Amino acid sequence: MASLGLSVVRIGEFAWSRLEPARGGYQLDWLARAVDTLAENGLKVVLGTPTATPPKWLVDEMPGMLPVGSNGQVRGFGSRRHYCFSHLGYRAECERIVTQLARRFGEHPAVTAWQIDNEYGCHDTALSWSNAARDGFRDWLAQKYQSTEALNRAWGNVFWSMEYRSFDEIELPASAVTEVNPAHMMDFRRYSARQVADFNRLQADILRSHSPGRDIIHNFMGRTLSFDHFALGRDIDVASWDSYPLGFLEDRSDASDERRKKYLRAGDPDFQAFHHDLYRAVGNGRWWVMEQQPGPVNWAQHNPAPRDGMIRLWTWEAIAHGAEAVSYFRWRQAPFAQEQMHSGLLMPDGGKAPGFAEADRVAGEIAALGELPQTGTADVAIVFDYPSAWAWEIQPHGREFDYFRLVFDFYRGLRKLGLSVDFVSAEKPDIGGYRLVLVPGLFAWNDELLAALESHAGIVVTGPRSGSKTLDFRIPDALPPSLPTNILDLRVLRVESLRDGCPVAVPGQGAFKFWFEHAVTGALAKASAVCENGMPAIVRQKDFVYLCGWPDDQVIDSMLRSFAGELDLEICPMSGGVRMRERGDLTFLFNYGDVTAGIGEIAKQADGGGCELLLGDRRLEPSGISIIRRRKRTPPG
Amino acid sequence: MASLGLSVVRIGEFAWSRLEPARGGYQLDWLARAVDTLAENGLKVVLGTPTATPPKWLVDEMPGMLPVGSNGQVRGFGSRRHYCFSHLGYRAECERIVTQLARRFGEHPAVTAWQIDNEYGCHDTALSWSNAARDGFRDWLAQKYQSTEALNRAWGNVFWSMEYRSFDEIELPASAVTEVNPAHMMDFRRYSARQVADFNRLQADILRSHSPGRDIIHNFMGRTLSFDHFALGRDIDVASWDSYPLGFLEDRSDASDERRKKYLRAGDPDFQAFHHDLYRAVGNGRWWVMEQQPGPVNWAQHNPAPRDGMIRLWTWEAIAHGAEAVSYFRWRQAPFAQEQMHSGLLMPDGGKAPGFAEADRVAGEIAALGELPQTGTADVAIVFDYPSAWAWEIQPHGREFDYFRLVFDFYRGLRKLGLSVDFVSAEKPDIGGYRLVLVPGLFAWNDELLAALESHAGIVVTGPRSGSKTLDFRIPDALPPSLPTNILDLRVLRVESLRDGCPVAVPGQGAFKFWFEHAVTGALAKASAVCENGMPAIVRQKDFVYLCGWPDDQVIDSMLRSFAGELDLEICPMSGGVRMRERGDLTFLFNYGDVTAGIGEIAKQADGGGCELLLGDRRLEPSGISIIRRRKRTPPG
Amino acid sequence: MASLGLSVVRIGEFAWSRLEPARGGYQLDWLARAVDTLAENGLKVVLGTPTATPPKWLVDEMPGMLPVGSNGQVRGFGSRRHYCFSHLGYRAECERIVTQLARRFGEHPAVTAWQIDNEYGCHDTALSWSNAARDGFRDWLAQKYQSTEALNRAWGNVFWSMEYRSFDEIELPASAVTEVNPAHMMDFRRYSARQVADFNRLQADILRSHSPGRDIIHNFMGRTLSFDHFALGRDIDVASWDSYPLGFLEDRSDASDERRKKYLRAGDPDFQAFHHDLYRAVGNGRWWVMEQQPGPVNWAQHNPAPRDGMIRLWTWEAIAHGAEAVSYFRWRQAPFAQEQMHSGLLMPDGGKAPGFAEADRVAGEIAALGELPQTGTADVAIVFDYPSAWAWEIQPHGREFDYFRLVFDFYRGLRKLGLSVDFVSAEKPDIGGYRLVLVPGLFAWNDELLAALESHAGIVVTGPRSGSKTLDFRIPDALPPSLPTNILDLRVLRVESLRDGCPVAVPGQGAFKFWFEHAVTGALAKASAVCENGMPAIVRQKDFVYLCGWPDDQVIDSMLRSFAGELDLEICPMSGGVRMRERGDLTFLFNYGDVTAGIGEIAKQADGGGCELLLGDRRLEPSGISIIRRRKRTPPG
Repeated sequence: MASLGLSVVRIGEFAWSRLEPARGGYQLDWLARAVDTLAENGLKVVLGTPTATPPKWLVDEMPGMLPVGSNGQVRGFGSRRHYCFSHLGYRAECERIVTQLARRFGEHPAVTAWQIDNEYGCHDTALSWSNAARDGFRDWLAQKYQSTEALNRAWGNVFWSMEYRSFDEIELPASAVTEVNPAHMMDFRRYSARQVADFNRLQADILRSHSPGRDIIHNFMGRTLSFDHFALGRDIDVASWDSYPLGFLEDRSDASDERRKKYLRAGDPDFQAFHHDLYRAVGNGRWWVMEQQPGPVNWAQHNPAPRDGMIRLWTWEAIAHGAEAVSYFRWRQAPFAQEQMHSGLLMPDGGKAPGFAEADRVAGEIAALGELPQTGTADVAIVFDYPSAWAWEIQPHGREFDYFRLVFDFYRGLRKLGLSVDFVSAEKPDIGGYRLVLVPGLFAWNDELLAALESHAGIVVTGPRSGSKTLDFRIPDALPPSLPTNILDLRVLRVESLRDGCPVAVPGQGAFKFWFEHAVTGALAKASAVCENGMPAIVRQKDFVYLCGWPDDQVIDSMLRSFAGELDLEICPMSGGVRMRERGDLTFLFNYGDVTAGIGEIAKQADGGGCELLLGDRRLEPSGISIIRRRKRTPPG
Repeated sequence: MASLGLSVVRIGEFAWSRLEPARGGYQLDWLARAVDTLAENGLKVVLGTPTATPPKWLVDEMPGMLPVGSNGQVRGFGSRRHYCFSHLGYRAECERIVTQLARRFGEHPAVTAWQIDNEYGCHDTALSWSNAARDGFRDWLAQKYQSTEALNRAWGNVFWSMEYRSFDEIELPASAVTEVNPAHMMDFRRYSARQVADFNRLQADILRSHSPGRDIIHNFMGRTLSFDHFALGRDIDVASWDSYPLGFLEDRSDASDERRKKYLRAGDPDFQAFHHDLYRAVGNGRWWVMEQQPGPVNWAQHNPAPRDGMIRLWTWEAIAHGAEAVSYFRWRQAPFAQEQMHSGLLMPDGGKAPGFAEADRVAGEIAALGELPQTGTADVAIVFDYPSAWAWEIQPHGREFDYFRLVFDFYRGLRKLGLSVDFVSAEKPDIGGYRLVLVPGLFAWNDELLAALESHAGIVVTGPRSGSKTLDFRIPDALPPSLPTNILDLRVLRVESLRDGCPVAVPGQGAFKFWFEHAVTGALAKASAVCENGMPAIVRQKDFVYLCGWPDDQVIDSMLRSFAGELDLEICPMSGGVRMRERGDLTFLFNYGDVTAGIGEIAKQADGGGCELLLGDRRLEPSGISIIRRRKRTPPG
Repeated sequence: MASLGLSVVRIGEFAWSRLEPARGGYQLDWLARAVDTLAENGLKVVLGTPTATPPKWLVDEMPGMLPVGSNGQVRGFGSRRHYCFSHLGYRAECERIVTQLARRFGEHPAVTAWQIDNEYGCHDTALSWSNAARDGFRDWLAQKYQSTEALNRAWGNVFWSMEYRSFDEIELPASAVTEVNPAHMMDFRRYSARQVADFNRLQADILRSHSPGRDIIHNFMGRTLSFDHFALGRDIDVASWDSYPLGFLEDRSDASDERRKKYLRAGDPDFQAFHHDLYRAVGNGRWWVMEQQPGPVNWAQHNPAPRDGMIRLWTWEAIAHGAEAVSYFRWRQAPFAQEQMHSGLLMPDGGKAPGFAEADRVAGEIAALGELPQTGTADVAIVFDYPSAWAWEIQPHGREFDYFRLVFDFYRGLRKLGLSVDFVSAEKPDIGGYRLVLVPGLFAWNDELLAALESHAGIVVTGPRSGSKTLDFRIPDALPPSLPTNILDLRVLRVESLRDGCPVAVPGQGAFKFWFEHAVTGALAKASAVCENGMPAIVRQKDFVYLCGWPDDQVIDSMLRSFAGELDLEICPMSGGVRMRERGDLTFLFNYGDVTAGIGEIAKQADGGGCELLLGDRRLEPSGISIIRRRKRTPPG
């Protein structure tokens, strides 16, 4: 490990049955030996808390801790994540084991950080339909609403005679005859997300108290929106995520079949970048890749091998977006159990796996490059909001409406123009520094965000569907997008969800797909683009813009080019699978495609600034990387 | 409402939690005020009984009333229709609340009608797999068969050792290792349908006794075949149905993708007409549209907006088929709960929704047209039978075989030739007045129908699969179609179900798809068309016809043209999305298509008769309507 | 029956409710009358034991005997196979009823054989998730591993803290949060397969003791791999299977839509042959078709009718592969219950069904042909292994990876070259007599097989994925394919599963699909074909070959032609749907296709040997059969 150039090693994240083989019989010495061995070789350690895998004896002691599916079936022992976040007894057990670990290893000089648990929400575990969850939900509702009258009013329970007379009458929103009240489900989503945050904070507090100065980390999973990561971000020091580009393209992507084939061994060119930027926001600027795919994985419907060079490329891409560390998972392929087909840097026999050489190369390159500039602030921000993902999952209204998919479409459009992007939480909307701010599909405004948008100097793009609900999951009295007239004088009278292949054309620009809103402008707003059917497509009031539908790639591209021009944002349209990211005065270029690409325009712009090619060259082979140091941009003309 | 031209308003159909917030604490005054307010403005009221939404306190008192899915999971509180039709305790509760309402409002002068419950069978609720259903089923079987020996014989339980020794041994036909005996399932379907009818009759009797002279109505849902609507039709005065053309095309249609796109904002041109005609039969001539889609709805996989003019068109189409009333659902869009995305005539803020103007226009047009002629009797009848739908759901034999789909194919064929159609119940086969009678896919003959067909003067078309079973769900001793030789001298030796794309050609006419029967004619019958494989395609004996397969559109068209010629039925082939319907001496023309269509042939025929254009003109714009008054037809030549 | 030329009749296989209508009240006389009646007409009888359909009174006495689905739902009474193989109480009941039957009929001169139970494993019944299974599994594990330490080590339970401290802690591998340990599941599959074998042996022992000299038979179902048929083969005298060519093409085939349409009424040309050869191996040379499809069946998603002549062809094909008997199911179509749409040789009314004449014809032809030669040994063997099917079902790694599908691709390739094939059990690898031996996708080597392969004189083809695991479901220490260097000096470093449409080309030969392995050869082995990407495609060391991917039809064809040339195997490439099979000195030719085919090359070869056409002629009509007697082949040149 040391000779490969690794500096940090994560261990222990699933080891409860070895740390405490029987209640109270702690056996921590073996772990101490491992930590010491690593330390002696100059390696730092991230210690994982083992709470994602409670041992069988513990489960048998308190079977009520097991999570329950929405069909009422208990989700049992035999794999991992077999616990219900709402179960207070299990929380006490976690407190106990984490305290033991923190006391023993908290001040070990080699322990540089802690990872709490592992991939919250993975395998659909953020929601549990257990008795513990039901009881906790009732208490949470009672505290939130104080009276059932208030709850009935907020949820609109008069509809279909769903009124409650006691909080103890309220069931979890599963197993009703047809769909449940979306307000009921939305509160259960909020409650459940809160349990994850509370569960995490309990461990963070223990670790912080017994292990001062160490970073507290959680490793989030890709495209996981079942709880509010920003809320956890407040309790941790570093956000990390587990980046499996090929598995994600197979199993967690909306890509067409053609696109899946094209990027089979490279991964989607924007998926990793999206998460890098998102988790930088979750971590308040500090983030890692905790698990980087080093070869084929085991869990997707198909598991191809990365194209030569992609492991290096993925690593550099994370660095470009500001990662403090990129950790490969796993070091050595385990020859047994569930993940035996998950590659490591080493093969099961200890030999070097094909990915080893790439990790080796990139480690050398990073070392050679020396200290990197700060990531800095991008010109463009996207306001991101986990509750909006819940809202549209509860009420998609059209089969294709998915919050991630919508935001990702905007993100890709920005990135295809060479723009770097930051994410901003809707609940902590620090958008002051951005010239262009996008707020697609935001469920409901909050006061801070509204205030920030109102006072924002720069273009704000909202819609479709932004502000179409109140926080109580109602249609706002003033109708969507429910903005003060002085911000946007617009009312949406009707919305349509559309099947694929039934677009609404925006002449000269492209079309809306999946979603279209029938909007009428007031005196202060004006349609800056009109649909073929005569209805507003893009509405603008000063620098505030609203999109009346789900824009296709053409609409996104033409709109962003226009705003970039207006704002003097330098764009650099990318061809094929080429992508770029700026970090301070460095520009990183990546080729996800399978043909060699020139970097002409970028190089020209760079040359104009008097630049230096730090890595790679002016032609990007497939899987190629180039790094350019450029002076401050000179505005064109 | 009054100024819009509405005359009748339906209210109260889900209000139990407000009518009786706690057991016995009736609060009817608010409803009285609403009725009075409507009355003061000249509006009549349809009062709904609230039995589709029992309140939580009632459910908690008797949880055994909840319906149970075929997987054994209880279907709980939280939406609507959370009751089991078999539960006698719940029936008593319904009796109680309905009696209260009937006593209070039964003789109110503004109350012109009652709607019992709401959309029986919606959300798959006609069948419940509860203990109440099991016990009721056992009793029903004991009464039907008197001895298990008789039941074992009827069902053929000797097969696979399924014999019973006591009625209490019989379980509901769910959760067996593989498919259950179809006779077992068929009896459970009959039993379940009977519970719906009994449940409904209980309320009808109360209302009839306390509210003399008022119409008793139920609002059926589209393409709902899970219980026998004709059976309920005997206990109500008016059948009504809930017509959502766009939602039905999305979620309840067999249309191809191409067709779904073509009629995205118009709805299938034949789906509404089919139900109008069907519910006219269910209501013994009296029927309404109780809920007419007034804009986008909330519940389909995609929810587009109606094309301009379609709300008017749909309304007129209902009138053309004889509707006594067309009621829009809903008046004002509710901003909360499950149906918050379901349009109304008013928007959530009380402003006029886009559909308002169309309702306004059609109300004026109807008023201007004055009294309409009686609907009269069509030339063509289709014999319809709910138990046949159950039978082929139980034993489709080929994946595509669906009773509704088969009948709908024939209906569309008739309608594309401009023919008006009546439906006739197979159990009350008044077919005397019809020149052409179609009996496609009828499960089993009954004596009345056989007698009616035998004595019928006119062409009778049966098959495929008609008469292929006995009422006990057996293959008839004489082999299908099991008709007396003097009616049809034909035996089916084999049937084939075929995958899509594997047709059996009928040269010169088209092909059979999905289903083909190997039939041999006796001395009295003759194949009037022969398949490419040499086997009979269409068999005829005097005026009795049998189809040896599922005809594609071409076979249906050529066959119907031929019979129409023979019977001197005037046909008027429709182009694209144009359709027509006659009501007395009026011909209504509708354009569901998206291109303007001439009505040349129709107008020519009309001119020949010396006619008058009452509404619209000779060119039908998309969504256009024309109404022609014509003299009695003169036979051509 | 007798006049049709039938000689053996199977009866009684589901008759428990008639044999014992109430506990202990045996009523065997009716069955004795049936047997006597058959005997009086010269017919032999196969008596079925009725254990696939325990009667309701028995189930009610011991409801714990019911099988349980993996979702925990009890699979109840009402069809068939409603018992759990692990339930010892039910086994005792089976012992009781079988003993009664065996005592009464065991020495009846007309009883020539017994069929035990019916279609083990059908309707997914080999696995049951009952308490009985759980308890049995724990005992079985305890006996296998002796200590939980050993089990934990073997399974790798240290992973994810899955370690057990007592065998009673181990649950059935269902309902975990995400996938369970494959080793856990593999042992449950082994345990479950063992229960089937034990259940069967219990009856075999009783019958053998009370009915000496009679053949003990079970009728297996097509493409059923859920238990080890070879294991049962050790306890029975004759293997039989139930051959439904059209139903299998519809429901149990990987064929493309195009292929399904092409062979709609003929069945897949290789599916029956595959099973004939497989069950000949299971029966140690002795096998029957116990149920031959005689017309349309009832159970597939589509149920077309066999093309004229196919029932005769299917019958002859079985004879060609060495069947001792071909029994049609059923004699007369039952007009009631679940299989009322399943054709028989007679129609429900007793008339002759269309298939009757074909059975009649083939019976005459067989009689005319006289005694047939022994089937003999083929030149080619495929090593087949049921546990491998379980392993890849547990861990497909790529969605398309299915053991049967893989083996079937090789089988079809052989058959399209006119080669006859034998199957050999991996656990009893008598491969001495074969010139070409294929071992595709074998999960794990065993010592006997390795020894046999090592000493084999002839070409051995292994891979893909062969030997990629140990018997403990681990990756072998030496990496796959884990062969001694002297057999194959090759290591697989990485595997990829690929989505359809993403092949890895093997220039000049075709491509790999679905699966590709990155292999490196050692000094002793050599890539005889290389992929476009430069990696080994086919690796060879002396006569030992390894395939580094799932070969498409082209690769299979070119490889087999090459090996056949090398080995002097005479090939005879088949066009379209023509197939051949040798039995002794006879060559049988079949035309599954729908165009007439010449048999030129075969006839020429035959002529060269001085041959005789025993049946049919030199042109094969669709459904045609020709039989040629040939002298011993003369090697070409």
